[in-house]
Amino acid sequence: MKVTPQSIRVGTQLLPAQGGFLLASRALELLGLAFPVDWAEYARAQGLTSPEKDFGIGPEPTLSLPEFVRLGFEAQTPQARRWQKSAHKLLARMLAGDVRLSAEIAEANPDPQAGRWLHARLENQNARKLLMSTVARHGGSAEVYGQLGSISNASVLGMDSATLRRERGVKSTRDGLNTEELLRLSYLESATASAIEGRGAHGNAAILSIHRSLAAQERRTWQSQPRQNQPWQNEPRPIGAAGRPVVAGSGNTGSPQQAG
Amino acid sequence: MKVTPQSIRVGTQLLPAQGGFLLASRALELLGLAFPVDWAEYARAQGLTSPEKDFGIGPEPTLSLPEFVRLGFEAQTPQARRWQKSAHKLLARMLAGDVRLSAEIAEANPDPQAGRWLHARLENQNARKLLMSTVARHGGSAEVYGQLGSISNASVLGMDSATLRRERGVKSTRDGLNTEELLRLSYLESATASAIEGRGAHGNAAILSIHRSLAAQERRTWQSQPRQNQPWQNEPRPIGAAGRPVVAGSGNTGSPQQAG
Repeated sequence: MKVTPQSIRVGTQLLPAQGGFLLASRALELLGLAFPVDWAEYARAQGLTSPEKDFGIGPEPTLSLPEFVRLGFEAQTPQARRWQKSAHKLLARMLAGDVRLSAEIAEANPDPQAGRWLHARLENQNARKLLMSTVARHGGSAEVYGQLGSISNASVLGMDSATLRRERGVKSTRDGLNTEELLRLSYLESATASAIEGRGAHGNAAILSIHRSLAAQERRTWQSQPRQNQPWQNEPRPIGAAGRPVVAGSGNTGSPQQAG
Repeated sequence: MKVTPQSIRVGTQLLPAQGGFLLASRALELLGLAFPVDWAEYARAQGLTSPEKDFGIGPEPTLSLPEFVRLGFEAQTPQARRWQKSAHKLLARMLAGDVRLSAEIAEANPDPQAGRWLHARLENQNARKLLMSTVARHGGSAEVYGQLGSISNASVLGMDSATLRRERGVKSTRDGLNTEELLRLSYLESATASAIEGRGAHGNAAILSIHRSLAAQERRTWQSQPRQNQPWQNEPRPIGAAGRPVVAGSGNTGSPQQAG
């Protein structure tokens, strides 16, 4: 069995981890909890179901991150109370939209693809905002925003956003997209904004006509590339497939999109 | 008094907010808590110290985000328990380095400068990693990494990183930098990586000599720009100044860098 050492930062400490599971002995120690004499009994009592993992000296008990968080809030040791305080601060920063925290979270992700995805996701927000403000300045009315989105989705994703959210198990459409899909949507929406501006288009019909024609062109360009696989043309990729971000506790916590 | 309506998303709900403070009546309602008949008495008992704010009908009590989080964890209503569950999930995602959460946090920030800062911060990580791997391939030894950083900091920031962290009240140097400073560091470190590669430099002395000379050049380029103000040349900007990210609970929670 291949041993791949990893670690997960909790506050100032780095805890040994394997595939998203924490080494239970070290995680309990951080919370000031004694490692139980009978792990099986303890796990049953606490409802812990994470698999044993090999950290170099044979299989050892682990905690999933949701299990760790739950134990952390239940424990009443001084260490656990300290951890709870820091957790409170993190939640307050999250609610405030603290982008330093965004950066810290991204840094905690060992997958270089995850950084690429985040870049693409942020760029996608910018492109979308630019298109929306351009449309508003060129006499687009309320219903045109949804129609533009429908055209983009049908062209790039090959399905509507409700289908995509259902099939990929996400609450927000853009969170369900991979890096390439985000890039294509940003490109298409920027191109449309630029064309609306350049041609001085005015009103819903003119705007939609430009967007439909650019969507068709973008699709032809993209499909003419010799590529090894284009899975998104036929079927959505499962969570965690290539180009998708690493998602918290995937495989053991259900959809992280339920949180909030 | 100018009324600037805002809102902060908590789960699926948008709570009215002013300058980072939640309208207390709506925040308590979300947690299933009755609004107290005597607010002053309740605030004293709970240790709530947030100022009243005008949400359009005259001054009303508010909660800071840390106060809201604390009440949310103390309350035992079904609504509060639901909120606690979602908070647990968010913390697990944070520990896992879930970049979708990074994007959600950034989206929650209304300041367009915040997005720009995050981009610069992520790019800075990439530039730094590239320089480190280039140095390793060109015979740089352990101590050269710190020396490169010292040269960059002295040149771009005009001070060493310990001074910067102390003066700006941050734990991590890069979190204390503004967008321009991040951009300059990324630029300088990329230029050095490229020059090491291009000239086939080998060993600490050659690497440091390249970096020193490029740092001086970059500084001259930057300082030759006609600019309206260059405050970082003389004094660090206070937290929250132009080009700095909006930080959770600034002004009422102390340094967010203490969390973790």
